[in-house]
Amino acid sequence: MTTATGHTEAIPASRVIGTNVYNAAGETIGTIEDVMLDKTSNGIMFAVVGFGGFLGIGEKYHAIPWSVLDYDKSRGGYVVPFSAEQLKAAPAYSVDELTEGDGRMARDASFAHYRVEPYWH
Amino acid sequence: MTTATGHTEAIPASRVIGTNVYNAAGETIGTIEDVMLDKTSNGIMFAVVGFGGFLGIGEKYHAIPWSVLDYDKSRGGYVVPFSAEQLKAAPAYSVDELTEGDGRMARDASFAHYRVEPYWH
Repeated sequence: MTTATGHTEAIPASRVIGTNVYNAAGETIGTIEDVMLDKTSNGIMFAVVGFGGFLGIGEKYHAIPWSVLDYDKSRGGYVVPFSAEQLKAAPAYSVDELTEGDGRMARDASFAHYRVEPYWH
Repeated sequence: MTTATGHTEAIPASRVIGTNVYNAAGETIGTIEDVMLDKTSNGIMFAVVGFGGFLGIGEKYHAIPWSVLDYDKSRGGYVVPFSAEQLKAAPAYSVDELTEGDGRMARDASFAHYRVEPYWH
């Protein structure tokens, strides 16, 4: 399913969930815990990235735009082109907050923070 | 997360997987086994619907356009506006076939069969 450059067009959600995510420096950020789907627009809202569970019960998640996740075959995970500083300053949400306002709160803040062109315009 | 009409905009993929699917007559068609994501376009290619496993090893799956799945709160599952005949005649694929040609073979045949407007044009 993976092309020579490590890119794949069709990817089952179940295979994305549980995959590691690395930052630009190759450091592990966390794991893709889920993928938020947009029921009405046919779009993928964002990937839900967990920090690895060390926050426990009150765990917070990053909403990361799907389009910036770049699969790195050698690492077996996704790389995002963000620095540790950008990620540290990124908005983080509880599970309930991720779907607040039909997911638009987390989605909009995330795309703005990472300066990713909105897919919904 | 669900609105008064049973619709939800933001829905985690993990919650979609495992949900029952019913046809227009209320008969159970099968279960959503996975959601095929389009890595390069930010689109949801189709839902992968299994017939319930009675085909065993050689199980075949329907590729059903995401936009036609209508959540029915009272049933706790998705309803598709297709007759038993339409579903019986629908193209069905093995797991490998679902991602063949970057998923476009199953996607294109499915949208054509169910007469759903392509999201990728």
